[in-house]
Amino acid sequence: MTFFGNAIYILPWLIIVETKLTKLFPPQLPRGFIAGGGVCGIKKDGGPDLALLYSESEAAIAASFTTNRVAAAPVKLSREVASGGRCRAVIANSGGANAATGERGDIDARRMAARAAEALGIDPALVAVASTGRIGRFLPIEKIERGIEELAAVVRRGGNGSAAAAIMTTDTRPKEIAYQFEVEGRPVRIWGMAKGAGMIYLKMRVAGPPHATMFCFLLTDLEAEAGFLRTALAAALEQSFNRITVDADTSTNDTVILLANGSSEAKVEAGTAGSAVFREALDRVTRELAWMIVADGEGAGKFVSIEVSGAASDDDARRSAAAVANSPLFKCALYGETPNWGRLLAALGYSGAELAEDRIAVWAGDLQVVRSGLLVELEPGRAEEELGRERISLKVDLGLGEGRDVYYTCDFSPEYVAINKE
Amino acid sequence: MTFFGNAIYILPWLIIVETKLTKLFPPQLPRGFIAGGGVCGIKKDGGPDLALLYSESEAAIAASFTTNRVAAAPVKLSREVASGGRCRAVIANSGGANAATGERGDIDARRMAARAAEALGIDPALVAVASTGRIGRFLPIEKIERGIEELAAVVRRGGNGSAAAAIMTTDTRPKEIAYQFEVEGRPVRIWGMAKGAGMIYLKMRVAGPPHATMFCFLLTDLEAEAGFLRTALAAALEQSFNRITVDADTSTNDTVILLANGSSEAKVEAGTAGSAVFREALDRVTRELAWMIVADGEGAGKFVSIEVSGAASDDDARRSAAAVANSPLFKCALYGETPNWGRLLAALGYSGAELAEDRIAVWAGDLQVVRSGLLVELEPGRAEEELGRERISLKVDLGLGEGRDVYYTCDFSPEYVAINKE
Repeated sequence: MTFFGNAIYILPWLIIVETKLTKLFPPQLPRGFIAGGGVCGIKKDGGPDLALLYSESEAAIAASFTTNRVAAAPVKLSREVASGGRCRAVIANSGGANAATGERGDIDARRMAARAAEALGIDPALVAVASTGRIGRFLPIEKIERGIEELAAVVRRGGNGSAAAAIMTTDTRPKEIAYQFEVEGRPVRIWGMAKGAGMIYLKMRVAGPPHATMFCFLLTDLEAEAGFLRTALAAALEQSFNRITVDADTSTNDTVILLANGSSEAKVEAGTAGSAVFREALDRVTRELAWMIVADGEGAGKFVSIEVSGAASDDDARRSAAAVANSPLFKCALYGETPNWGRLLAALGYSGAELAEDRIAVWAGDLQVVRSGLLVELEPGRAEEELGRERISLKVDLGLGEGRDVYYTCDFSPEYVAINKE
Repeated sequence: MTFFGNAIYILPWLIIVETKLTKLFPPQLPRGFIAGGGVCGIKKDGGPDLALLYSESEAAIAASFTTNRVAAAPVKLSREVASGGRCRAVIANSGGANAATGERGDIDARRMAARAAEALGIDPALVAVASTGRIGRFLPIEKIERGIEELAAVVRRGGNGSAAAAIMTTDTRPKEIAYQFEVEGRPVRIWGMAKGAGMIYLKMRVAGPPHATMFCFLLTDLEAEAGFLRTALAAALEQSFNRITVDADTSTNDTVILLANGSSEAKVEAGTAGSAVFREALDRVTRELAWMIVADGEGAGKFVSIEVSGAASDDDARRSAAAVANSPLFKCALYGETPNWGRLLAALGYSGAELAEDRIAVWAGDLQVVRSGLLVELEPGRAEEELGRERISLKVDLGLGEGRDVYYTCDFSPEYVAINKE
């Protein structure tokens, strides 16, 4: 599935002012940032496994980590960095999560930060660390230290593509995106890269408690305070990474980091016009990266959006959409392209949301499949046609109130099990 | 997996007084009950799809139904019967759930009860109904009515085996069990049959709100009040069907019905010696049927018990065990027989239970695999050996308090998706 190349998915109630944002092809880094990715030998297959992001000047940082109580060592370290509000670099590895590794894990995470700081000539307290891969194994720290030195010597303005490749695990392709917009006449950029694939069911909190399979690193040359960035990031996460699910598992290392280094000389604060356009850009970058993660979910062949409206409350709408998005049985039916709306109704029924069965309506694309809680009689093959698409848009109206929300998910295929059995 | 034929699984803290209960081979009905199963033409493959249980005298009834808010029509009807406390017969079909079928569904459920009552010469208000199969389709009610008449003419004392076969859907084998015990010198029997396979994650309440894929029908010739039966059944469900999960989906039609007709002339009340032995028999029948459902889970190749101890509370222990039992990633690793204890730790981490990572210990059988939150270095192949078994016993000690609980689940295989894509 590669339909996210250019397409912009516009929700009916979320109108994006198209003209203000320009997508950059290929994605380019904002000013004052350099990046790179390389091979340090963690992965047995010799694939790229180390990425470095560096800001030429001190940047403001906002970050968010998994709520899993088994916190990876790099998550604990990066939470400290984020709480200080300032950051110069991020060092990230794939191939090992450095989670459930005890004291030695903490020491290894600090060694990664220290070596990067030394190689870049910066304060180690300003280096964030992120790790992804298998939980419970120690990192090959000497290999990583050598790799950090080599990488620090070659990072460059055009190194973003190699960085995005180096954080991949079971991802089938790198995920990277950039937009440009104007603030008071000055051009500003925002760039982001992400990885995902499995163990994706995110319950993140900005500067909240932490977990190791989803990364999103965001860089902008805007000038902004860490407090403003935190508020903007929290809102962006709510409509992006916190609205997707691949397998209802929540990882130990999920990490989102946003750096703003001010190189554009355009400053924004809460309430200004610049703030609105920046938040729109941030929302779009995070949402598109989140969709890329779902579309590249382990074994996924379909991208499915589940919009719920008419719920008694927004909370109920979220619960309903999440229950459908997480139902293994319904997702198997999506894989089989079998219209089994009963499974969708069952998921609504156990979601915990208030329901009046005879008011439920469901649409697949423009085709109504459930009316007043009953399956609509359809021409043979009509529903299968809708389910045959790579991208499926499901809409549920609970007929009770004004609550609405949306979740994004993928189908559930035998390949998922094949990928995860090892 | 057929290792439940004779085996009795004894939890360390749940010692069963072996001598008082005698298992009956083959399973036989208690006195005063007759049963039967047959073909009425709901299933396209011509398999048995209609079962009838009948008590020669009025029986006390206790029942429990799914908590899913999309309630199947037969669930609504049977809840009414159960609330009256008296019952004479249960008519059950497979091949169609009669859920999400609106008013016509309600009429069809009532027609099933009425036809059974007419054929048996009893009050229709004393007939419970249960349906399982696809959600959202109307039942072929004329076929079913003809089937009920035919079945009522042939039910007999030895018909329990055909009844157990007629409630199967994706089950690969019928599930039936019976015990005999003594109350004040009189022999008493309890017999139960169940079906399961998929959409199994039960959150049932006795006489609580309702949902369509797990059935358990229990018959005893004990004499007891409905109130006593309800209390005993609620406790039995907590340690059996409410402790298993196949796929974290909760169905629209789950139904458990217990009938006691008094034909043994042995009466029990709360607090008597007879009460203890009956509750023990009821616990054992429900637990063994629940295990049979897990072992016959859709695509399942392994039966896995997850015992958590040392939790801060029993609630925390339950949450922890349930999170591991429901983790798709960990269950894929079980299928692959790959020791990936990091996934188990991640599931504990997102369970919501209080955790101190460095106190966690995990055993697979007698092999300790996690100590102080860290993976234990093992001889190559040792953990794989434990995971290679058909029956896997995992023990988790959280090292915090006295809370303990246990869940039963199966592995997650590509066959699950293959079964459910249609």
